[in-house]
Amino acid sequence: MILNSVGIVGLGLMGGSFGLSLKHFLPNTKFIGYDHNEAHKKDAVKLKLVDSITTNLDDIFDCELIVLAIPVDGIIEMLKNIKSVSKKNTIMDLGSTKKQICENIPLAIRENFVATHPMTGTEKNGPSAAFDGLYENKTVVLCDTQKSGKAQLELVENVYKILKMNIIHMDSNTHDENAAFISHMPHAISFALANSVMKQKDPKSIIALAGGGFRDMSRIAKSSPDMWGGIFKQNKTNVLDSINYFKKELETFEKLLESDDFGALKKWMSDANKLHDILK
Amino acid sequence: MILNSVGIVGLGLMGGSFGLSLKHFLPNTKFIGYDHNEAHKKDAVKLKLVDSITTNLDDIFDCELIVLAIPVDGIIEMLKNIKSVSKKNTIMDLGSTKKQICENIPLAIRENFVATHPMTGTEKNGPSAAFDGLYENKTVVLCDTQKSGKAQLELVENVYKILKMNIIHMDSNTHDENAAFISHMPHAISFALANSVMKQKDPKSIIALAGGGFRDMSRIAKSSPDMWGGIFKQNKTNVLDSINYFKKELETFEKLLESDDFGALKKWMSDANKLHDILK
Repeated sequence: MILNSVGIVGLGLMGGSFGLSLKHFLPNTKFIGYDHNEAHKKDAVKLKLVDSITTNLDDIFDCELIVLAIPVDGIIEMLKNIKSVSKKNTIMDLGSTKKQICENIPLAIRENFVATHPMTGTEKNGPSAAFDGLYENKTVVLCDTQKSGKAQLELVENVYKILKMNIIHMDSNTHDENAAFISHMPHAISFALANSVMKQKDPKSIIALAGGGFRDMSRIAKSSPDMWGGIFKQNKTNVLDSINYFKKELETFEKLLESDDFGALKKWMSDANKLHDILK
Repeated sequence: MILNSVGIVGLGLMGGSFGLSLKHFLPNTKFIGYDHNEAHKKDAVKLKLVDSITTNLDDIFDCELIVLAIPVDGIIEMLKNIKSVSKKNTIMDLGSTKKQICENIPLAIRENFVATHPMTGTEKNGPSAAFDGLYENKTVVLCDTQKSGKAQLELVENVYKILKMNIIHMDSNTHDENAAFISHMPHAISFALANSVMKQKDPKSIIALAGGGFRDMSRIAKSSPDMWGGIFKQNKTNVLDSINYFKKELETFEKLLESDDFGALKKWMSDANKLHDILK
């Protein structure tokens, strides 16, 4: 694949790992980075996440492929300010929500744009969290692709294939519904779990007993409040709906335990076990 | 350390890993296993979790160290049937609850008994799930140890030190309160999360998007319903109490999101982040 230049806006975990990983496969491509955080700029160059840094967004939008790897509210803000790009250019985003982003793509650049959500990440952020391989063998969702230009869609699909990702197509509405269940609501639960322990009289004595289960359940409670504030805002209705489904299940558990109905409780747990017949 | 014989009741993940791990450090000790499951017996020998299998519980209770590695309701059942053991013998359990177990230790063997809860495990079970190293660098809670004989307590502490565990002492009541928050309630949440996804119209399309966050949050939803039925039963009040604390936090999240109070929502997430200042 021939790709002259990639411009990445946001050099944190997602954008940084994108540059670092793709550079290995495309050694002749020029990777330019943009970030509003001074420390991030220095770290990104030191860690070789990109080849160079620019303070001029025009340099980014002159690139053949433009990657928006910033929080979702920042993506919408930026979309409002994109005047025009060359017909040949491709712009993609890596945001965790898709409906509001797709609704806010200016018509003038609609064909240039491919809306994507790579289902990968960690609880860490910033350039130092970036690593080669973050995208490998993970799933990426491409949304509302009938509105993207054919060449642009092909370019983005090729890039994700190079990164060894599994590509799924979905309309942005369905994506946001499903992402609420598989990612956004679980983050709310993890934050709530962490807070419920932290508000006890002696959290240290409780946390001293943490095994693998609690570590896993609370890992994503370390996620960035700034980033997640925007995600919850943009996917508010679906997140609240999915929490209602979750609360119903938790109430079922409570009722069965309160009434000592251990037969039904075991059946309920067996039903939960079946998730792992699908999740491989 | 000189230990002639170890008898392990229950050759699943916990008991099997205990035998496998301890054997490496005590090559001259005889390890005898007991299990009511025929397949488990064969697998345990094949996997060298113990040296030999007995079908006679008396052989187990003749051992210098007796390890009860069975579900918590089975431990209480077994305690009722232990008539007497030699004064020198040591009996320990690995159960996830401690209060009801400690209350059910017959007076005749009270000094022989050391109640323990190693804070380790996986979502898997059976002898094939056992592995060397399950206990290494993990924490184990020893409860109500003032009621154990001095020699017995010393033996159990030495065994856990050999396994490179971090030993914590706690009364069984406090253990059960803390274990509800750090282990039992998180399991209930994980089961509820799995069921909330499984009850949607098209769970496969949702699960296809699973990344690391959902995998971690749902891992322990694969845990054994039989084992967990007993744990929830024995720690019912504390589990229900801890769920109430968790639900309050989740409701805080819902209220802040419903009212678009993103400043307070970010503060709430920052509070959750602080868990990781303690959990290392």
